[in-house]
Amino acid sequence: MSLPPKALILIADGTEEMEFTITYDTLVRGGIITTSAYISTTPSLDRLSDATTTSAGQGQVTLISPPTAKCSRGVRIMPDIYFEPSASGFGPDKYDLLVIPGGAKGAEIMARDGGVQKLVRDYLGQGKYVGMICAGSLVAKTSGLPSQPITSHPSIKSELENSFEYSEDSVVVSGKLVTSRGPGSTFPFALTLVELLVGSEKRKEITPPMMFPSGTPW
Amino acid sequence: MSLPPKALILIADGTEEMEFTITYDTLVRGGIITTSAYISTTPSLDRLSDATTTSAGQGQVTLISPPTAKCSRGVRIMPDIYFEPSASGFGPDKYDLLVIPGGAKGAEIMARDGGVQKLVRDYLGQGKYVGMICAGSLVAKTSGLPSQPITSHPSIKSELENSFEYSEDSVVVSGKLVTSRGPGSTFPFALTLVELLVGSEKRKEITPPMMFPSGTPW
Repeated sequence: MSLPPKALILIADGTEEMEFTITYDTLVRGGIITTSAYISTTPSLDRLSDATTTSAGQGQVTLISPPTAKCSRGVRIMPDIYFEPSASGFGPDKYDLLVIPGGAKGAEIMARDGGVQKLVRDYLGQGKYVGMICAGSLVAKTSGLPSQPITSHPSIKSELENSFEYSEDSVVVSGKLVTSRGPGSTFPFALTLVELLVGSEKRKEITPPMMFPSGTPW
Repeated sequence: MSLPPKALILIADGTEEMEFTITYDTLVRGGIITTSAYISTTPSLDRLSDATTTSAGQGQVTLISPPTAKCSRGVRIMPDIYFEPSASGFGPDKYDLLVIPGGAKGAEIMARDGGVQKLVRDYLGQGKYVGMICAGSLVAKTSGLPSQPITSHPSIKSELENSFEYSEDSVVVSGKLVTSRGPGSTFPFALTLVELLVGSEKRKEITPPMMFPSGTPW
């Protein structure tokens, strides 16, 4: 048997927590080794802004809480690792899938991040999958991807429709780029990623225990 | 206008992160003030087991990370508050809804916790809503609730069917007790709670922007 595939899913302040969590959890159910990486808006040393300083005896030490992502509706999620543009270890040589969740503010942070833009180009350039959902599809534009079928949350349709072949399908697969629309389409988005990475049998295996109501169209 | 309702959603190590996050996020979208509380398996002082000790200069200080819930598929969520059975502030005088998510291990922690069992009885006794999903429905049994219509993940059906009127509907409303089946039924579960607490107009308002695929049966 081959080794299980690996996925890197980005998270930032303002990420849509349902899109992040449904994707992460479903990929894990699919047997995919999944890692979350926090995209900071500030240089790493500025993380000390969360720190408090205390003194004990004659010594002094700075306590740093590991930063958590404050998501779009207030859920705070602690990432597995912290993204550093200058570090190796995040590229398509390490992971088989890169996922960009939505949430307006979180997606904007990722869309503006040159390191994230480079990751997207590197993954697609080396034939690895990239998933974008909701406002996450903005990163397709800022990364300078060529025109191709794409979807997104309708709130950012106007920013994409001139640069891409805009679709209103719930999940759009364009070569290795997989895009989707919002929290409500995250289950079919994540199940599509599972199918592409590990096959339709695995998708069929993990879906029934999730207990979707009868008539659910995925 | 009346004040918005408030919800308390429990979380523990092993909680199903999709069930937690979808419910939390959807309640917030419904205008419900939502707070998560961590149920520890250990007395509060034992939280120091996560601590590391470091020395700086001549001083020494113990660093304590705030405990996060390590959820069923590895997502780590930082709760808003920490549940203390002896403290006031968690009861039906403070919140209008108590939610017990699933995830086998997390639900078992909650089901065994006398403080949680008392909360469930207090909420229902004072006419406040209680939601349980997936293995979370175990708490109905350990809390000694009377026989009534209930559902759960099928993996714990055998533990409930002799004590309750077991249903296989995706969402079961029995007076103030609302139960559901699994991650795949969390959206209709959470939307039902929104409708019960703030009305069907709010449910209709928040559903379309979530972008459920055409034909989704909720």
